[in-house]
Amino acid sequence: MDLRLRAFFEPKSVAVIGASRNPRKIGHIIVSQMLKAGFSGKLFPVNPKATQILGLKAYPSILDVPERVDLAIISIPAHYTIQAIEDCGKKGVAAVVIISGGFSEVGNRELEEELVKEARKWGIRIMGPNCMGVYSPSSNVDMLFTPDDVLPRAPRGNVAVLSQSGSLAAGLMTMLAKQEIGVSRFISYGNAADVDEADLLEYLSEDKETKVIALYMEGLKDGRRFMEVAREISTNKPVVVMKGGRGKAGTRAVLSHTGSLAGNEEIYDAALKQCGAIVAQTLEEFVDVCMCLATQPPAKGKKVGIITNGGGYGVVAVDSLEDNGLEVPSISKELKERLKRELPPFYSISNPLDLTGSCTADQYKIATQAMLSSEDIDCVMVIALMSPPLLDRPRLIDYMIELASSKEKPLVVISMEATEEITKQLRRLKHAGIPYYTDPSRGARAIAALARFGEVKKKGSISSESC
Amino acid sequence: MDLRLRAFFEPKSVAVIGASRNPRKIGHIIVSQMLKAGFSGKLFPVNPKATQILGLKAYPSILDVPERVDLAIISIPAHYTIQAIEDCGKKGVAAVVIISGGFSEVGNRELEEELVKEARKWGIRIMGPNCMGVYSPSSNVDMLFTPDDVLPRAPRGNVAVLSQSGSLAAGLMTMLAKQEIGVSRFISYGNAADVDEADLLEYLSEDKETKVIALYMEGLKDGRRFMEVAREISTNKPVVVMKGGRGKAGTRAVLSHTGSLAGNEEIYDAALKQCGAIVAQTLEEFVDVCMCLATQPPAKGKKVGIITNGGGYGVVAVDSLEDNGLEVPSISKELKERLKRELPPFYSISNPLDLTGSCTADQYKIATQAMLSSEDIDCVMVIALMSPPLLDRPRLIDYMIELASSKEKPLVVISMEATEEITKQLRRLKHAGIPYYTDPSRGARAIAALARFGEVKKKGSISSESC
Repeated sequence: MDLRLRAFFEPKSVAVIGASRNPRKIGHIIVSQMLKAGFSGKLFPVNPKATQILGLKAYPSILDVPERVDLAIISIPAHYTIQAIEDCGKKGVAAVVIISGGFSEVGNRELEEELVKEARKWGIRIMGPNCMGVYSPSSNVDMLFTPDDVLPRAPRGNVAVLSQSGSLAAGLMTMLAKQEIGVSRFISYGNAADVDEADLLEYLSEDKETKVIALYMEGLKDGRRFMEVAREISTNKPVVVMKGGRGKAGTRAVLSHTGSLAGNEEIYDAALKQCGAIVAQTLEEFVDVCMCLATQPPAKGKKVGIITNGGGYGVVAVDSLEDNGLEVPSISKELKERLKRELPPFYSISNPLDLTGSCTADQYKIATQAMLSSEDIDCVMVIALMSPPLLDRPRLIDYMIELASSKEKPLVVISMEATEEITKQLRRLKHAGIPYYTDPSRGARAIAALARFGEVKKKGSISSESC
Repeated sequence: MDLRLRAFFEPKSVAVIGASRNPRKIGHIIVSQMLKAGFSGKLFPVNPKATQILGLKAYPSILDVPERVDLAIISIPAHYTIQAIEDCGKKGVAAVVIISGGFSEVGNRELEEELVKEARKWGIRIMGPNCMGVYSPSSNVDMLFTPDDVLPRAPRGNVAVLSQSGSLAAGLMTMLAKQEIGVSRFISYGNAADVDEADLLEYLSEDKETKVIALYMEGLKDGRRFMEVAREISTNKPVVVMKGGRGKAGTRAVLSHTGSLAGNEEIYDAALKQCGAIVAQTLEEFVDVCMCLATQPPAKGKKVGIITNGGGYGVVAVDSLEDNGLEVPSISKELKERLKRELPPFYSISNPLDLTGSCTADQYKIATQAMLSSEDIDCVMVIALMSPPLLDRPRLIDYMIELASSKEKPLVVISMEATEEITKQLRRLKHAGIPYYTDPSRGARAIAALARFGEVKKKGSISSESC
């Protein structure tokens, strides 16, 4: 791991080259967001025409900053960036984020190559260009140039999100914030002229804040190295990958977007799977899967037990689980006997187990406990419509939180936010680290990811030839 | 069409057999919900032990009701229902909803057959048994026995929703209410002992309140008749079908749920498609597709034009559209010239058309208008991240509403509710009849349904041999 990368995420001092007094300018918003995030290190705005920006002393050049600078964030026109890198080099800065666009994404490959050459000369690692940079709540770093009053930030958590595309990054942030999924490091790395996916994966694999690594990418410059790194990591931390630009028209769209060459879908798909990555097909799945991997243990196998209070929901859940390669086995003799003993006699004991509209919270507890402790079930899906009259909702949530706390086997809930009171109860689940989904199909895809991670972990280190 | 069915949806007078003073009883909630819904006809609680229920005069038997009764809703133990049907027959009631369970769904096929036999003797049509019945906002009918304080109702609209399963019906209602998708008739028809899917489809095909028919089913008793009716209707009104119990475990789950025999997946799938139905695989898709069909015209073909302000979103949208059998064609010469003329020179004109982070509402208007009026585009997907600094959000929404109002070509928006203000703007879109989705993949599935309906319409009446 390259220790210089740490400066991107946990800098003690940051210079913003191109800091501005104009609130509409990116160089202003970055300083403002760093302040709002409560950055506790030193912040140095650099602008030859200003003496003060947002109450901070401004410097004409980074070379005028009287203290050591760990990280420089550059937001100035593309053709000035080479000079800025030289200045950073002279100042001894190890890591630079280049927000500015105008490089390979608009066909200006030469300038981008020159940039990297200049950086290498000084031993500087570059993130970008053409990126939004980093949001890292644990270290109070927020250099995303879209203000948080239009782009609310996700809370602190353990999912590292990487996106080549800035707009996708913004969209993902909105989805994560809305679903209250916590992030450790949120990285928009743009053109990846220097620091690329493989470098970031390597760093994040040893990052204590990060449990799950989720990556949106369109193309890879060094596919072999990425696959090697992913293979190393994926048995330890789940690596979720969404690959944009799969079909023909998609490849064309990627070319006009980042200038990357999107590769053949089948090759990517096979390579990613061989390296133990968890492949997501849609943004919704990408986020849903992260929520589950961030909170639940891997599943030891594919056998899912379903508890429901609606027969139709059980049927739909079975379809979705099977669509995702999972199994809904007939209930074993042992488990059947236990449930028959503990539940009222009028329930027919099978998988899905239908507690019907006369369900109670205690029956949910009995059934969930029995399934969680059965050798024949690898993961439990609890479907709970919240309207049945005898169902004590707060108690049901209490039980689920209690039962899931051992984290020995995954537990996923299917339910729906309806009234304010029901929403409040369900949010309690989420805050206790139990994911819930509106639709059994979304839960099924998330469970499939848990089973996939379990399988990858079991295989351990895959031989390098197979990758 | 059997005119007796009208009494289920537009009764002038309703008797509730099994009405109760106990607020926890189904027979109480039904009366209470009918009153809350503002039912303007006559309502007669029937209960031998009460003189008054919820302020209404109660009658010992339906035979004691002094006026004509169009519809009886029965919620009494299963073994009393035969007698109740006889009473209804003597009273001249044409339509009866049997809420009570305890029939074929628990193996009691004989009682169910007896029930039907008794009803036929009197010329009565039965909905149920083992169902929730009807919610019909246009006629202020609401017999759903889950109170609206735990199961909020969807607003009035033009989607008819049919579900064999009561729990699925409840779940769908929650989803529809949350997404503010309006329903015309919402029907939980349970065991379908008498009135079945085909009868309801026939009725709804001529129902002026209904534009889209959406059906969740697990099995069909008379598959041939259903397919014939569906084929007749589907060229006129879109018929969306979700079939539960597709795989082996699913078939087993269906058997234990409704006692229906779920058939072979491939056969169902092929038959449904041949009859012009639009098949949904998940609940989310089912609801998403309804929202689109309810508001947008069918697409004349598969060619989708994409306008975006994020390159990555464009890439992801292309993938999703292609995954759903749609096309994202290169932009035609004519359209390219028009866009080049009308947009600022720094945009590269292609499909997806990327207006980038410097987009304005006016540029969105220009681009959308051009695509909507191009012969080479059948449907427009507008992706609008709401955070770009120059984007006047209220104006963008105004433009979209204006452009979509002609309803000549479908328009689908991809955006995300983030802040309160953004959510408010997006809700304006929805209230004006423009669907929006968080994830391009969800929008793509909805567009695929519009293209499918367009194709079915074009084919017109499919020859009966092909079905």
